[in-house]
Amino acid sequence: MQLKDEYRERWRQLQEGMATAGADGCLVSTVVNWFYLTGRVMSGFAYLPAEGEPWFFIKRPVNEQGEHIRYIRKPEDIPALIREVGIPLPETLLLEADELPYREYVRLEGIFHPKATGNATTLFHAARRIKTDYELTLFRLGGKAHTLAYQSIPDLFTPGMKETELQWEIERVMRRCGCMGLIRTFGTSMEIFMGSVLAGDNAEAPSPYDFALGGGGVDFSLPIGGNGTNIEKGMTVMVDIGGTVTPYITDMTRVFSYGRLPEEAYRAHQVSIDIQSVVSELAIPGAVCSELYDVAVRIASKEGLEDFFMGTKQKAQFIGHGIGLQLNEGPILSHRSKDILEKGMVFALEPKFVLPEIGAVGIENSFIVHEHGLEKITTAEEQILPFLET
Amino acid sequence: MQLKDEYRERWRQLQEGMATAGADGCLVSTVVNWFYLTGRVMSGFAYLPAEGEPWFFIKRPVNEQGEHIRYIRKPEDIPALIREVGIPLPETLLLEADELPYREYVRLEGIFHPKATGNATTLFHAARRIKTDYELTLFRLGGKAHTLAYQSIPDLFTPGMKETELQWEIERVMRRCGCMGLIRTFGTSMEIFMGSVLAGDNAEAPSPYDFALGGGGVDFSLPIGGNGTNIEKGMTVMVDIGGTVTPYITDMTRVFSYGRLPEEAYRAHQVSIDIQSVVSELAIPGAVCSELYDVAVRIASKEGLEDFFMGTKQKAQFIGHGIGLQLNEGPILSHRSKDILEKGMVFALEPKFVLPEIGAVGIENSFIVHEHGLEKITTAEEQILPFLET
Repeated sequence: MQLKDEYRERWRQLQEGMATAGADGCLVSTVVNWFYLTGRVMSGFAYLPAEGEPWFFIKRPVNEQGEHIRYIRKPEDIPALIREVGIPLPETLLLEADELPYREYVRLEGIFHPKATGNATTLFHAARRIKTDYELTLFRLGGKAHTLAYQSIPDLFTPGMKETELQWEIERVMRRCGCMGLIRTFGTSMEIFMGSVLAGDNAEAPSPYDFALGGGGVDFSLPIGGNGTNIEKGMTVMVDIGGTVTPYITDMTRVFSYGRLPEEAYRAHQVSIDIQSVVSELAIPGAVCSELYDVAVRIASKEGLEDFFMGTKQKAQFIGHGIGLQLNEGPILSHRSKDILEKGMVFALEPKFVLPEIGAVGIENSFIVHEHGLEKITTAEEQILPFLET
Repeated sequence: MQLKDEYRERWRQLQEGMATAGADGCLVSTVVNWFYLTGRVMSGFAYLPAEGEPWFFIKRPVNEQGEHIRYIRKPEDIPALIREVGIPLPETLLLEADELPYREYVRLEGIFHPKATGNATTLFHAARRIKTDYELTLFRLGGKAHTLAYQSIPDLFTPGMKETELQWEIERVMRRCGCMGLIRTFGTSMEIFMGSVLAGDNAEAPSPYDFALGGGGVDFSLPIGGNGTNIEKGMTVMVDIGGTVTPYITDMTRVFSYGRLPEEAYRAHQVSIDIQSVVSELAIPGAVCSELYDVAVRIASKEGLEDFFMGTKQKAQFIGHGIGLQLNEGPILSHRSKDILEKGMVFALEPKFVLPEIGAVGIENSFIVHEHGLEKITTAEEQILPFLET
């Protein structure tokens, strides 16, 4: 399939959703939705009518050529241009209601005066959570590079390091393996740099952000990730740095040990691997995400590890989440989730334990949902890997 | 002054602004405004009444202690808690209208049913653009570390490098000098990782983002920064990596050369330094930002360099911008700016030229506005520094 057909197919599917919502047009301007629609990032507004190809009303970059491209100075210029190209102005208009700031949304309403508005965020989220074959190809490529980078982590450690020092070396390797670095998230209260490296009890630090585990960070202004803990013998180091080699984020967590760990660490780590096995078996199209979560909690409880599952002082309320152009897409694997797995979804599964005075154990991998089961795209060794002691 | 007094003083100033706006209360939940108000990041809502200290209605992190802290599950829980602590519900409520997504804003309106709403973003922007002595101390610290990191850049180059390879090494040094990495920006269409390293003609690449210069980037999904250009003799390399050692971002750009450059590169670079000198002389409290911009353009024109000033194919429309918790704060130094310099403002000045077939030249520094002039807080050598050729 040609890439042009890829985008035509995305437009067709979005237009199907628009028809269901009774919408005449959909206007998007956020980076991720613009990129999903076109494979490019531009500053301006992409307008997808109920029928036909989208139109692009852009401010930057300059010098873009295309039959459907018009330059604007401000959004107020758009209605006249829409009339000029001979398509009707929308009576029911979808706008990115969960992404556009209030004043921008209201400004657009004032420009288009639609009889009704609807939520373009919902439309795009529904489309984006089912990945196309092209997107899956990029995911696999990302998973391969992510795996390659992780394989060199044991070589990066030297005794006496702080977790932050190790984190900087891992970040560099990730960059050298092609990571773009920036991790896009949905919502206004999620912030993350490249990911986190957590040694020992820093894995217990309660976080304001809604990640599985947070870490204290080095400054009150960014309470996530390494807090400068010295990596000492008997501690685990959990590495959860995002894969950003392609626009599609891969998520993988591995655990390393400095010196021999208490036996309970190896046992809890194995329970995480077991949970992954059980959930993987159940995770076929039609599987109920809340039940996958409940199964994981039951296994942790049966092993007497419920107090350590997904954190101690603060517990994450999910064991997995969809990934894509943003780190937190649908579906969500939580007790309250209403999501059902579908073919073409891609999600990260991260059953983790935090053991006081030892650190975090467990694994995280990224999976594609196929008709008959999961494909794991992050394939680094899953056992706890020891750092060299000299 | 104790840090507690620092925040009390911020609350007092915000409350002064609220009185002017006739507001009974102000509710904030975005990371930067929450951090400005408290020096912490939490997930939830901070409520500043017209009088008295703020109240904190939080979801995460757990276990926070404080007389004014209440835990909530959802924002709908807040009104009952406000009544419980004995303060009035606001009739005129300020909400972050330029930051909250439309649906969140509307949800909060539905919860509080205020008679009127106003814009908390405007209130916080006005307060945040004038920095306190404490904030200036952090800026100076950040500038020092930023300068220290930049001093090692010439040592990081080896012949045969691509700009991206050099960028990864600089990023590592910045991290080792204490940078947190994450650069916060205002608005939905600005994205940046740690900054950009631009070699040769990549500096000309038109960008969708509103930075002074962009660069093509390595992928359509993130069109900014290095695009993999080989650093060849006769090219400049412009380094513009953000300083994030403290929550207050410092901005500094320096230029390096591989081999001897054409004379016009040194001449244009000197014009940038001259523009900095002239603008610095004029930049006292009361100075009109649009005039500072116009002066810079006039100097570039007088030197016959107007076609290369602030880009070629695409030109940035500003020569400087306020910095703080976000990279793009007020004031803005542009032709259309209505801003007037005030004591306590901190801004980056970046008169840059792009010379086809050579690359970008010019400098950027961060300045504090004092009563009698500017204090430069980024002090790395300003001349074009040569990379070693072997």
